[in-house]
Amino acid sequence: MSDVLFGILRKVTTATISTMLLKKGIRRCWMNGPKPLSARGEAIVGRAFTLRFVPVREDVATTESWGSAISTRAAIEEMPAGSIAVADAMGVPTAGIFGDILCARMKKRSVAALVTDGAVRDRAGVLMSALPVWCAGVASPASVNGLTFVGWQQPIGCGGCAIFPGDVIVADDDGAVVIPQASVEFVAKEGAEHELYESWVFSEVENGVKLPGLYPPNEDARARYEIWRKSRP
Amino acid sequence: MSDVLFGILRKVTTATISTMLLKKGIRRCWMNGPKPLSARGEAIVGRAFTLRFVPVREDVATTESWGSAISTRAAIEEMPAGSIAVADAMGVPTAGIFGDILCARMKKRSVAALVTDGAVRDRAGVLMSALPVWCAGVASPASVNGLTFVGWQQPIGCGGCAIFPGDVIVADDDGAVVIPQASVEFVAKEGAEHELYESWVFSEVENGVKLPGLYPPNEDARARYEIWRKSRP
Amino acid sequence: MSDVLFGILRKVTTATISTMLLKKGIRRCWMNGPKPLSARGEAIVGRAFTLRFVPVREDVATTESWGSAISTRAAIEEMPAGSIAVADAMGVPTAGIFGDILCARMKKRSVAALVTDGAVRDRAGVLMSALPVWCAGVASPASVNGLTFVGWQQPIGCGGCAIFPGDVIVADDDGAVVIPQASVEFVAKEGAEHELYESWVFSEVENGVKLPGLYPPNEDARARYEIWRKSRP
Amino acid sequence: MSDVLFGILRKVTTATISTMLLKKGIRRCWMNGPKPLSARGEAIVGRAFTLRFVPVREDVATTESWGSAISTRAAIEEMPAGSIAVADAMGVPTAGIFGDILCARMKKRSVAALVTDGAVRDRAGVLMSALPVWCAGVASPASVNGLTFVGWQQPIGCGGCAIFPGDVIVADDDGAVVIPQASVEFVAKEGAEHELYESWVFSEVENGVKLPGLYPPNEDARARYEIWRKSRP
Amino acid sequence: MSDVLFGILRKVTTATISTMLLKKGIRRCWMNGPKPLSARGEAIVGRAFTLRFVPVREDVATTESWGSAISTRAAIEEMPAGSIAVADAMGVPTAGIFGDILCARMKKRSVAALVTDGAVRDRAGVLMSALPVWCAGVASPASVNGLTFVGWQQPIGCGGCAIFPGDVIVADDDGAVVIPQASVEFVAKEGAEHELYESWVFSEVENGVKLPGLYPPNEDARARYEIWRKSRP
Amino acid sequence: MSDVLFGILRKVTTATISTMLLKKGIRRCWMNGPKPLSARGEAIVGRAFTLRFVPVREDVATTESWGSAISTRAAIEEMPAGSIAVADAMGVPTAGIFGDILCARMKKRSVAALVTDGAVRDRAGVLMSALPVWCAGVASPASVNGLTFVGWQQPIGCGGCAIFPGDVIVADDDGAVVIPQASVEFVAKEGAEHELYESWVFSEVENGVKLPGLYPPNEDARARYEIWRKSRP
Repeated sequence: MSDVLFGILRKVTTATISTMLLKKGIRRCWMNGPKPLSARGEAIVGRAFTLRFVPVREDVATTESWGSAISTRAAIEEMPAGSIAVADAMGVPTAGIFGDILCARMKKRSVAALVTDGAVRDRAGVLMSALPVWCAGVASPASVNGLTFVGWQQPIGCGGCAIFPGDVIVADDDGAVVIPQASVEFVAKEGAEHELYESWVFSEVENGVKLPGLYPPNEDARARYEIWRKSRP
Repeated sequence: MSDVLFGILRKVTTATISTMLLKKGIRRCWMNGPKPLSARGEAIVGRAFTLRFVPVREDVATTESWGSAISTRAAIEEMPAGSIAVADAMGVPTAGIFGDILCARMKKRSVAALVTDGAVRDRAGVLMSALPVWCAGVASPASVNGLTFVGWQQPIGCGGCAIFPGDVIVADDDGAVVIPQASVEFVAKEGAEHELYESWVFSEVENGVKLPGLYPPNEDARARYEIWRKSRP
Repeated sequence: MSDVLFGILRKVTTATISTMLLKKGIRRCWMNGPKPLSARGEAIVGRAFTLRFVPVREDVATTESWGSAISTRAAIEEMPAGSIAVADAMGVPTAGIFGDILCARMKKRSVAALVTDGAVRDRAGVLMSALPVWCAGVASPASVNGLTFVGWQQPIGCGGCAIFPGDVIVADDDGAVVIPQASVEFVAKEGAEHELYESWVFSEVENGVKLPGLYPPNEDARARYEIWRKSRP
Repeated sequence: MSDVLFGILRKVTTATISTMLLKKGIRRCWMNGPKPLSARGEAIVGRAFTLRFVPVREDVATTESWGSAISTRAAIEEMPAGSIAVADAMGVPTAGIFGDILCARMKKRSVAALVTDGAVRDRAGVLMSALPVWCAGVASPASVNGLTFVGWQQPIGCGGCAIFPGDVIVADDDGAVVIPQASVEFVAKEGAEHELYESWVFSEVENGVKLPGLYPPNEDARARYEIWRKSRP
Repeated sequence: MSDVLFGILRKVTTATISTMLLKKGIRRCWMNGPKPLSARGEAIVGRAFTLRFVPVREDVATTESWGSAISTRAAIEEMPAGSIAVADAMGVPTAGIFGDILCARMKKRSVAALVTDGAVRDRAGVLMSALPVWCAGVASPASVNGLTFVGWQQPIGCGGCAIFPGDVIVADDDGAVVIPQASVEFVAKEGAEHELYESWVFSEVENGVKLPGLYPPNEDARARYEIWRKSRP
Repeated sequence: MSDVLFGILRKVTTATISTMLLKKGIRRCWMNGPKPLSARGEAIVGRAFTLRFVPVREDVATTESWGSAISTRAAIEEMPAGSIAVADAMGVPTAGIFGDILCARMKKRSVAALVTDGAVRDRAGVLMSALPVWCAGVASPASVNGLTFVGWQQPIGCGGCAIFPGDVIVADDDGAVVIPQASVEFVAKEGAEHELYESWVFSEVENGVKLPGLYPPNEDARARYEIWRKSRP
């Protein structure tokens, strides 16, 4: 079932998804911060695997901590194939939470993408790893320079949104949105319908029709749309 | 008359315009926020058609409000050809005030450009609409997610600048500046002269002349410039 | 000596440099703000020549001040070939501290790069000057619009870092770091060694080895690395 | 009618009002910025009379503008007795929008209070005027130093909230909230009931009852509350 | 043992504690945000009991959630007597995480204090509860307006510091600091010694001695201090 | 001469001073940040003695640096009696640049006041030292925790204003303003006149006169003011 819904969601823009969630009363779904490290032209869909950082404290955030049992390295080994790693870096712009090597390992494990409100490091290497990344910037220092990693698969905040493990994440060139698990089916179905409607509106605009009465539609526009809709092959 | 001045202004960089306005005592003319959504290499000039948003309130900022008499859709139908829509989005980064459909309609109506201190949504569609856009970012959610539209052609703030309807806007790859109506002629004429002078300075620098005494010019440099200026075809 | 170290540093990423400095207890070395105006793919290394601005005051920051003895023009003439100009613009985003003409003069004087936590102006002209620039943005207004230039070769703050004249600056696509003079040799040597180790780790990851135990290495990994290291031509 | 509701609202804390509005789906009602200039211990209730500023532009925001037809002085003469002036100062902390003289005139005209997300000036004089003030700070410079006054009784933003002329404002030591006109009756009646319930909870807590099951109440607690409620004189 | 150390720490200012931690290489110990809601003139010492919030999402942060098993109410019942509740409210200024009733219950349970980088609500009621509170402000809306409570006794960030359950917190009129458990004894003993030394320096300054050579002491000053120290009763 | 002008300035509010400077075209004179640590009800006037900090770097900002030749301790010994120390702390809120001992020494040396856009530490001790302080907050950690002291009597930025050594500073309960040396006489004389006029306006407002036509005055009001002015004893 999920596979079908995920397939539909891949064709729905994050812009449309956020409008569908607004109909459910949810305004906090788009993460303010994560931007595509390189434009892709297509969307990624997956379940959130969460990572959590707190601020640095010099006695615990050290290069030695990279070998600890609670480390980003260990977390990566727990990520299911197809999941999207969502990292709460508290919006810290001065530490790159992942670099080329960790991204390469995630790619190797078939992780679908990395989304964070923090920075990554070693831009060239991360791009080379081919892991799709949405982040708020690039910084040379490692995470231990400004952050302390404390665990995974807990509820987190990312870019002003609450993210629970298993929530569905969709990311495209406008950024990344979170869909609560209970709303996935609604968003996918209504969203696909909305995309169809917008494509008709766009063609009407190209024909010179003005927007008031068209978008949102008055009765006449709705009727014309229904005719067009039925006439599609 | 305007046409001639607008033609001149198109050849004057926003950098030079801001220096000319400083001579008039105006330091607040460059909007902090709007950046070209895609670099263009050439300037756009037009009169400001202002749009105004206030913060969201859940009882008034709804998808239903899109059909109201005071809506961005209605405002677009009032924009004169050649005008530049300047939208006060209060610098809110989490709501895209316009998407592909509204931009396409603006383009159809020969609006010259959109300038905002907020975000647009559906980056790919907006680029496809071919409307030149200066904005502070991209966000998936619609304006009703974070903003309430309240009217047009009122004085606004945009990126730290006061904009009055009819002010002249010039936008290039450095951003967008506002020229008060009373200063347009001064800025165009002095600006064009300044550009000529800077082109001579640039060639002098290429020849290895050092800047002190050249820029700003001492008497000797001024004399050499006058000779060069007169010798131009 | 410096030449040899600088040659080594050119091959060490700023990511690695910041990790080496962390081993010395220095967490504040990456400037938060300066980003490459255009990606270069290679690093620049040089000694810092510092420039200092304070906020604007309308009686002193005027276009007339461009001709004063304490001006950016005069400072440029003092910059040694190969130095990197680091300008403390207090993170002000609304004034471009340098434009095409000043950048062209710096290039002519063989200045290696410009790094600032502020903005530059006339983006097109600055790119044309071919001077490598790391800045926090682009703005049309000149520095006198928002800043007052007060001197050079003093200690400054830039992007949250203390920079002393003569400190070594390395800038690449991740941004710019400062290396205190006393740590240059350590960073160059340890950094080069670290890069070698990371290149081996990267190949291991490509072969499917998981990170825990590999990075940082356990005894087995260390042994395998030593064998690989010795087997290199 | 309003008088009765306003009398009830005076006894309901802004904390309770914001909880009642949340039940209506309205989360944006508390203005982030306005704080009491001096603690009062009691609430002020009144209808919003809105004032609007945009950023300063040096050609229009001058001391001369104080005499213009569109000035804060003129606006004050339009304020009805009992109204609360709500000023959108765009959160600018560096200009005091009103000083002792304007506050004294407002007090003379029986304006109930001033609420702003900006600053006031001449703290000692404003306190002496006895006008209740909620502001975000104090600053010496006048409004023309950083702001341009553009009109009154328009929709505004203040502290992240949309305020429409005629909305009801309640301000106490926690700050100021806006109640949309359609929700005033609901908020007053439900709010008064909620205050009564909380006063009973408080006494229960004093008696050592733990909160889970009490607040919010389970069936047993609800029953005990009903008994207490009926037994009140 | 702890009791003795806590008794010593009560006499050491947070200013001195932060200096002692700097000697251990720890610069991140003072929380930026929490300020005393009312000045007390004396310090509170206790072990951290942590609380964690993530951003609001409208489907989970509702008034109904107050009755859930994971609620602030339930957390309060787990707090040991003498502990200091430290709440990570992500610095959100627009939601009061606790009001009069919850503070009264904490006081009843002998919780020593509440420290948060967020706001509290119902200022008058919180003061009346007599629970010592360090917070970043006051706001009318409840936590569910802007935050989602997700758990307790996990590592958190608060005001830029990492706080682990059981860390020692000291709060006075300068704010609140965290002492890692491994450093408590060092800080208490060295801190007490430092306070003694500063009291002598203060008396020297009163006698007109200048600071260079006195603070930090040169050999002569150190000798004079030792004599004074030994002569104390 | 200065003594006479300083005596006049002590009776002119910082609000009036900023309006007088606006007449000279100077909008940047009020420092955004410094607030009175305790309200005083009277103004302090003195010449600026500047202090400068840059960001911390762990190798130079240490407790050992307190004994260096370039230290705040050494700077204090250079401050003339009656001067006002103005410290550029870059607005850093997490380090207290001065505590009780340094403030006590400044008081002993008859320094008139301390003004900074940063924090002080040991609030209780600083208040006890009786040195008048305008600061942006209080923080436990010492300056070396977040800042590096680099010198004195250089041009600085403080709270968004440029301050040159010898500029005149006036501080009252609204904050602190800087008067460029060339404008001191104008500000004192015009300011005193303005205060007189405002006192008359205030009495008119008390008598029920409305503001338009009064402030600024029309011809009639000006005539009445002149009569009042001449009739003063």
